[in-house]
Amino acid sequence: MQLNLAILPGDGIGPEIVEVALNVTKAVAEKFGHTLSYEYALVGACAIDKTGAPYPDETHALCMKSDAVLFGAIGDPKYDNNPSAKVRPEQGLLKMRKDLGLFANIRPVSTFASLLHKSPLRADLVDGADFMCIRELTGGMYFGRPQGRSEDGNTAYDTCVYTREEVERILHLAYKFAGQRRKKVTVVDKANVIATSRLWRQIAQEIAPQYPDIETEYMFVDNAAMRIIQWPKSFDVLVTENLFGDILTDEASVITGSLGMLPSASIGIHTSVFEPIHGSYPQAAGKNIANPLATVLSAALMFEYAFNLMKEGSLIRQAVNASLEAGFVTEDICSNGQPHT
Amino acid sequence: MQLNLAILPGDGIGPEIVEVALNVTKAVAEKFGHTLSYEYALVGACAIDKTGAPYPDETHALCMKSDAVLFGAIGDPKYDNNPSAKVRPEQGLLKMRKDLGLFANIRPVSTFASLLHKSPLRADLVDGADFMCIRELTGGMYFGRPQGRSEDGNTAYDTCVYTREEVERILHLAYKFAGQRRKKVTVVDKANVIATSRLWRQIAQEIAPQYPDIETEYMFVDNAAMRIIQWPKSFDVLVTENLFGDILTDEASVITGSLGMLPSASIGIHTSVFEPIHGSYPQAAGKNIANPLATVLSAALMFEYAFNLMKEGSLIRQAVNASLEAGFVTEDICSNGQPHT
Ligand SMILES: CC(C)[C@H](C(=O)O)[C@@H](O)C(=O)O
Ligand SMILES: CC(C)[C@H](C(=O)O)[C@@H](O)C(=O)O
Repeated sequence: MQLNLAILPGDGIGPEIVEVALNVTKAVAEKFGHTLSYEYALVGACAIDKTGAPYPDETHALCMKSDAVLFGAIGDPKYDNNPSAKVRPEQGLLKMRKDLGLFANIRPVSTFASLLHKSPLRADLVDGADFMCIRELTGGMYFGRPQGRSEDGNTAYDTCVYTREEVERILHLAYKFAGQRRKKVTVVDKANVIATSRLWRQIAQEIAPQYPDIETEYMFVDNAAMRIIQWPKSFDVLVTENLFGDILTDEASVITGSLGMLPSASIGIHTSVFEPIHGSYPQAAGKNIANPLATVLSAALMFEYAFNLMKEGSLIRQAVNASLEAGFVTEDICSNGQPHT
Repeated sequence: MQLNLAILPGDGIGPEIVEVALNVTKAVAEKFGHTLSYEYALVGACAIDKTGAPYPDETHALCMKSDAVLFGAIGDPKYDNNPSAKVRPEQGLLKMRKDLGLFANIRPVSTFASLLHKSPLRADLVDGADFMCIRELTGGMYFGRPQGRSEDGNTAYDTCVYTREEVERILHLAYKFAGQRRKKVTVVDKANVIATSRLWRQIAQEIAPQYPDIETEYMFVDNAAMRIIQWPKSFDVLVTENLFGDILTDEASVITGSLGMLPSASIGIHTSVFEPIHGSYPQAAGKNIANPLATVLSAALMFEYAFNLMKEGSLIRQAVNASLEAGFVTEDICSNGQPHT
């Protein structure tokens, strides 16, 4: 098979972890007789520095003609405490999501036996937790307009908007994934207070009967924030809107203790993007201490979701488990807390 | 001192837990020579059943002339899976908040040594955690307009609005509390994406220098959702907007294992409301198994915040600790998991 990739290393540790994942991708492609072609492009702070734009047109053009995008991370300390800077790395991320139509961000949350001691939760609560968060990624308050300030600058406003199509599309995806898993969908909203959530719940109630073998659970977002900690094993597929998803997926990502191990996929209309859930961790850049496994596991998701190559994905996962078991790990997941040499 | 209270038991276990807290209030008032007068009123599902309105005018009139309101909980299963019912108990809560100008919801999060085994977190992470969440309660998406649907019903929208006055008022309150505590304020927002959050952060950056002995920390809401689990002891006073506060305060409330023990205060323009953070727990109503201690501790906050009677509040807290140590507790916090008889 022909695999055309765009490689977007981004900022901080992005380049070094993407390099590892690309090497793994090359090895797997070779082993299975696929032809790999790839091109690099800029995104984030490094793109602002070199071109003035956080998601340059050339980068977009490359992504559009690629089958999949392997992405590192973006963000640089010089933009961190200045959220009102005119041009910011995150704008690149949001523009990329919108322009590529990346409507669904998928984050499998799973535990690794050898990392359970890193979990902030009691091991009995989290051992065996295995669920998937699906976050709507191109709607809601992130993109709703009007957004801004009154003339005197003393009143600010944001708009949250959702359309039937956006909600249906992502709910069907959630049911599709649940059908391949433990057959349960938890729809998270705040339907007791906001109108967009009432639309979500109404549509979920319309769609649920179309999947009679899948259980549907409705949960308010505040309750979900509690349940993720109290009973993570009760979830199979959790689906929610953009901003709730931003908060809940980050919450969910830390309960297993494997933050440096969690991959993600953003499924799009034009292409799909695969990236670790962690950030650009600038303090670690260039020190050869960054954990590349979340990015490597993102490459596994890429084989599976973008190319439907299941054996290739599963081989990568096996290799990751083998490294873990051999104790060949970076310092963040080293059991004795000492850097691994 | 003359203490005029409105007593709003609400639904489910509300009446029984409020009764206990009222008895404690009476005993403390008598011991310290205060004159207590109080009147009951309806709110929630029981108010809908009897008057058609979840927060009847008579209830509002009573609250307006009271120095403080002791509140139980609202909510009834018959409204639960029907978030689009025309009249719902939560509307009473929202109307009460708006009409009484309850702009700041305050939730102290603290641990009880005898309950640490109930925490979903590793004991070492949570032992000694002691922080305060301050949630803005009358602004943001809860009350912003327009809110609703397009004519064809296929598009829904909500509006989030904040004014300078609203943000300044609650930030000053946060600094006031921090000054009496460990002198750190964490301002939680999503200033990298939404305009209302950029207003919050701008105003926080203006106000922070007015409190030179207090450290100000800025944190994105997704990061805060992680940090509450990973490092709860890093917080002193956390302040945030309404919807983020809804999610984060519920998340924070479960990490200590003491959900049935946590009180709250909603500070208002016209009066203040004191209530447990847990819900109406209808399954337990009338069984004499509900834990009244969160409501009793809410009465302690009432003495302190509404009447500035610090000794009275502290005596209640001592009494609660003494009951806990004597093992005189309800089944939810009983260590062997057996009901206490
Ligand atoms: C950087 C920021 C705009 C982004 C978001 O809020 O979506 C990040 O938090 C994420 O979750 O990918
Ligand atoms: C019942 C609901 C409207 C309410 C809220 O969202 O504010 C509740 O969750 C709370 O936190 O008091």
